[in-house]
Amino acid sequence: MQTSTQGVPRIGTLPAGSRDSIADVPGVTVGHCTLAQDAVQTGVTVIRPHGGDPYRDKVPAAATVLNGFGKSIGLVQVDELGVLETPVALTNTFSVGAVAQAQIRAAIAANPEIGRAWPTVNPLVFECNDGYLNDIQRMAVDGSHYDAALAAAGQEVVQGAIGAGRGMSSFGVKGGIGTASRMVSCMAQRYCVGALVLANFGTPESLTLAGKLVGPQLAQRLAQPDAAAQPEKGSIIMVVATDAPLDARQLRRLSLRAGAGLARTGSVFGHGSGDIALAFSTACTVPHQADRAMPAIAMLHETLLDPLFRAAADSVEQAIVHALWHAATVQGRDGHARRALLEVLPELHQSA
Amino acid sequence: MQTSTQGVPRIGTLPAGSRDSIADVPGVTVGHCTLAQDAVQTGVTVIRPHGGDPYRDKVPAAATVLNGFGKSIGLVQVDELGVLETPVALTNTFSVGAVAQAQIRAAIAANPEIGRAWPTVNPLVFECNDGYLNDIQRMAVDGSHYDAALAAAGQEVVQGAIGAGRGMSSFGVKGGIGTASRMVSCMAQRYCVGALVLANFGTPESLTLAGKLVGPQLAQRLAQPDAAAQPEKGSIIMVVATDAPLDARQLRRLSLRAGAGLARTGSVFGHGSGDIALAFSTACTVPHQADRAMPAIAMLHETLLDPLFRAAADSVEQAIVHALWHAATVQGRDGHARRALLEVLPELHQSA
Amino acid sequence: MQTSTQGVPRIGTLPAGSRDSIADVPGVTVGHCTLAQDAVQTGVTVIRPHGGDPYRDKVPAAATVLNGFGKSIGLVQVDELGVLETPVALTNTFSVGAVAQAQIRAAIAANPEIGRAWPTVNPLVFECNDGYLNDIQRMAVDGSHYDAALAAAGQEVVQGAIGAGRGMSSFGVKGGIGTASRMVSCMAQRYCVGALVLANFGTPESLTLAGKLVGPQLAQRLAQPDAAAQPEKGSIIMVVATDAPLDARQLRRLSLRAGAGLARTGSVFGHGSGDIALAFSTACTVPHQADRAMPAIAMLHETLLDPLFRAAADSVEQAIVHALWHAATVQGRDGHARRALLEVLPELHQSA
Amino acid sequence: MQTSTQGVPRIGTLPAGSRDSIADVPGVTVGHCTLAQDAVQTGVTVIRPHGGDPYRDKVPAAATVLNGFGKSIGLVQVDELGVLETPVALTNTFSVGAVAQAQIRAAIAANPEIGRAWPTVNPLVFECNDGYLNDIQRMAVDGSHYDAALAAAGQEVVQGAIGAGRGMSSFGVKGGIGTASRMVSCMAQRYCVGALVLANFGTPESLTLAGKLVGPQLAQRLAQPDAAAQPEKGSIIMVVATDAPLDARQLRRLSLRAGAGLARTGSVFGHGSGDIALAFSTACTVPHQADRAMPAIAMLHETLLDPLFRAAADSVEQAIVHALWHAATVQGRDGHARRALLEVLPELHQSA
Repeated sequence: MQTSTQGVPRIGTLPAGSRDSIADVPGVTVGHCTLAQDAVQTGVTVIRPHGGDPYRDKVPAAATVLNGFGKSIGLVQVDELGVLETPVALTNTFSVGAVAQAQIRAAIAANPEIGRAWPTVNPLVFECNDGYLNDIQRMAVDGSHYDAALAAAGQEVVQGAIGAGRGMSSFGVKGGIGTASRMVSCMAQRYCVGALVLANFGTPESLTLAGKLVGPQLAQRLAQPDAAAQPEKGSIIMVVATDAPLDARQLRRLSLRAGAGLARTGSVFGHGSGDIALAFSTACTVPHQADRAMPAIAMLHETLLDPLFRAAADSVEQAIVHALWHAATVQGRDGHARRALLEVLPELHQSA
Repeated sequence: MQTSTQGVPRIGTLPAGSRDSIADVPGVTVGHCTLAQDAVQTGVTVIRPHGGDPYRDKVPAAATVLNGFGKSIGLVQVDELGVLETPVALTNTFSVGAVAQAQIRAAIAANPEIGRAWPTVNPLVFECNDGYLNDIQRMAVDGSHYDAALAAAGQEVVQGAIGAGRGMSSFGVKGGIGTASRMVSCMAQRYCVGALVLANFGTPESLTLAGKLVGPQLAQRLAQPDAAAQPEKGSIIMVVATDAPLDARQLRRLSLRAGAGLARTGSVFGHGSGDIALAFSTACTVPHQADRAMPAIAMLHETLLDPLFRAAADSVEQAIVHALWHAATVQGRDGHARRALLEVLPELHQSA
Repeated sequence: MQTSTQGVPRIGTLPAGSRDSIADVPGVTVGHCTLAQDAVQTGVTVIRPHGGDPYRDKVPAAATVLNGFGKSIGLVQVDELGVLETPVALTNTFSVGAVAQAQIRAAIAANPEIGRAWPTVNPLVFECNDGYLNDIQRMAVDGSHYDAALAAAGQEVVQGAIGAGRGMSSFGVKGGIGTASRMVSCMAQRYCVGALVLANFGTPESLTLAGKLVGPQLAQRLAQPDAAAQPEKGSIIMVVATDAPLDARQLRRLSLRAGAGLARTGSVFGHGSGDIALAFSTACTVPHQADRAMPAIAMLHETLLDPLFRAAADSVEQAIVHALWHAATVQGRDGHARRALLEVLPELHQSA
Repeated sequence: MQTSTQGVPRIGTLPAGSRDSIADVPGVTVGHCTLAQDAVQTGVTVIRPHGGDPYRDKVPAAATVLNGFGKSIGLVQVDELGVLETPVALTNTFSVGAVAQAQIRAAIAANPEIGRAWPTVNPLVFECNDGYLNDIQRMAVDGSHYDAALAAAGQEVVQGAIGAGRGMSSFGVKGGIGTASRMVSCMAQRYCVGALVLANFGTPESLTLAGKLVGPQLAQRLAQPDAAAQPEKGSIIMVVATDAPLDARQLRRLSLRAGAGLARTGSVFGHGSGDIALAFSTACTVPHQADRAMPAIAMLHETLLDPLFRAAADSVEQAIVHALWHAATVQGRDGHARRALLEVLPELHQSA
């Protein structure tokens, strides 16, 4: 198990971007709003595809639903039109409605003719179920938390038990937000592929770190010897960004490769896990109105996609590892707690 | 153009059920909650698949997205698991979030372990944009309106400018809620196929009633001679119910045939129209928990589906006609008004 | 029922191209090879997207499977890569294999490194079942017939009982090949949408010509009063070409609108009918090899697609009417015969 | 890296069936026909779902296309109808047509009314490109080879460079046919999941055996230090069989999990690799004719699928390992050769 200078297992051989983060893709920023008080352990994370108004300047996008046990909103229109028109929002399962309404309000504030002279806007919100740590029935997230996450968006992406990741669990330990990036070269051009995950999946005994199966050890330490009989609950949302010029069909292909990275961590896309990948490109934007010129740039030749595919798989796997590495122990509702991976298996840190 | 005793054009040759309504499918009920004051002209419509708790006893379901310019919530999980677990809710585009949260609350009220010991629940809300008549930016719908529509559910289905249909427009005139049903025989068994539509689509000049093109006449009367240049905006949600024993794969096939009925009214599934069909069967239910027995009934043989396919197309087309026939003139925001079809073309009524 | 100068019912209000044929799309040509001797009544029809080598210069393409009771080859790769790399071939159900192999041989002849230094080629063959008139079990079509159809490709498209249409039936009468086109204007640009259909679908009593239901009359004349109990067998292949700049995602949307035209003729996409639509664009080509430049042209803005959607629906419906109008009576195996529509219902011609 | 008694790396913790083969699923048999002379190194492999006639007694089935760079025939109808009606055939890319025609002939021989009084039959043929070792342009496979493979079907499944696997390559070494199985318990019932793969994918440096990355070592031994720049060509066909009662929707879910097993061997589903998984169940059959009774058995509850998902992933990964372990060195066209993995890395054998 190769590791980075920080002792984190290192995935693959492609170089990371300077931040090893989705924010290595130029223009992409991330913001969090975290709710962490007693039984409320949840939040919102927002990914902005660029610094402008995504309704006026939409970015090409596509998704793959590996396992559709999920309650996201927005994918029907992304599938049809192949673009995003809001930032990407992540939150807990029961807060999708509140965050979607906040996205609508933000879009209207920027474009008052939405829903009047102009068409409506397509909110795009993904979710995982943080109900073990968070009292999800309270629906504690409201629109102001989306606004705060959006306002906080920047290039420094804090990872772990933060934002939408605050209450998430993975492999029986603390999960949450992770990010990573990989650089690839195609035809003398250099492109970045970045991933951000909301990790809330995985049974302890299946955990695999950079190819090394540590799950049985973890399961034993967690005193869940019969963990094999436990279903793979939770979910993972995987957002992949790139500055390579890809159209929506190519981005759908790219998004599917997130599943390869996910599988390598031990997941078999369990029945109860909503495993969804979204990919978008920042190489061009599509104007909202037909009187502005459509982009006229060449997409990447299909035979050049393989390095990007590997970068997507590797950055997703790396982002999952980062989520586990950075997520601190959290106590939540009814005395429930999820411990940090490195607290349960301190030898992982020492061996690095 | 053949007509019924009420002067409504009659679609096809299959007999209707006793109510000519989706409620002819045993167990199915429909409720509305209507908001109609000044600039607020909107509402919620709810379809209950049976009288019990749909979370504990789920019904097989599947959908076809003919044109995904739409902001529904819930289809990702329906596609994966092939069941409904809430009533089907219809509302305006910007109220999906509020209604989804009301569905979650109602499910928790009935099953307090949802989001705790039990998994979360999948809200299922479809929408059309009623922004011409309704001040959609106000987001006037809240959870109480969903609760009221649910509580009002019964076998008598009021049609026209009511519930979610209150502010909808079709073919340049007033649209809204319509319903219809058809009876078919397969192998000495008699089955009902019922449809309920939320009609908010269509350009005036394309309107076709039972095969007769009345669109040019309508467009002229509406003083929109250049209507050909206007895009097909709006949307239509088409819900098809049946008591025939069909699994999710077969229901997906059934749902697609809604598109044949829709096309016969003049639609070409316009770019800006979210055209979505959902089909469900009441022939059996799937228990939430694995310790209850799964249904062990024979599905219909595939070669017997044709009458059901025709019934789906005919009942959807008939339901659209019913929506137009029953929708009264409505005045809404900023002095906007949509007139009733029979007011604009009174000869349609007289010719019947 | 409006009609053209030749007495053919005229669909819609958009103007046709100069030939009212798929060959109005610049560069598109069509060729037939017909086998018509005794019990063998079948053939091959080929559509070439342009005059060059489609393997070296691929055209963007996408398909919609309205009802997948069909045995085509090639759609898996079209879905993934969004391009055609052979001409489009049509034939009978049991000859797909022979024609696919002929396509492979033709591609190798032009590019000897296929399957060696270069990847393999994706044959693309669609089919309908002409087994009523044709002794399909003989598998009379071989590679030479594909070669002959390809060699015969030109701008004059013969319609009716010819090529792959030789043995096909529709609505209980003779079906086969039909074609049509429509011209649309978008942002001061003029585009052509052309359709070619292989029509082998429909029950007599459902036939609808330009909105007029003539089916019951037809069924009576064919002495099939109980035809309602007969399933919708057969199939229809609908190929839509355009010179508008559309990418694969947009072409998939365009192809779906073929279903609207099909529905208007009386089809509900019957269980046993393989109803498939393919759309391709000639506006640009994608080079086989990555060392040649990718096209860098602007796609049409999404909001401009509506006229193209209507043109696709109208040209498919018109092409179906053309197939019925042009298909002469054919006698085939075991004394089976399908009469021409105008022979069964001569008043259609007179009324025109 | 845990290994079995034969020194083969052992995947996962679930027990294998008695043969560790797809033929552990009761009724499933496999046959090969191998062509191995000079430049012709190819063949046909056939999987029979049961001992009867699959046209008269169809089995539920579904597929997942992970990467559609492939030329299979038959998936359109499997997607629509959710059943197989022929044995599953595997061969080289350019022989799909010949094998499909042989399947049609075999079905007609058993059911002479196919294509006459009865509908046509849906051939189902998958392929990989063996053009490095095999002179694929010769199209050496004909119908007799399909017949021979079918006739040879039995419970003993020979693995390696045999049948359709004769000319295949994987990870720069010899690939081909591999099989494996896993046993799971659900609600006191015991079910078998078996997999058979046609392995023709993977770049040397990515090879991962039971979690251990041996690729760099392999790439170095093969003297391909720059292998990272080589695309992932080839393909893999993964057939998953089970005796668990699953309908087509559930089988589609099961088939997707083959991708998890594939990813764990090092694949990221490369652009040029046709990666397709098919799953079928032998728990019941669907009669061809509607006058025979449809099966009325309970499907597995959705929440019980996780062990089957893991079994599918594990048996596919194990089958890939088996293919590599059993495939002997083969010399083919133009002096090309692919060496056996254990010949290139003999220490793998010794370490076991």
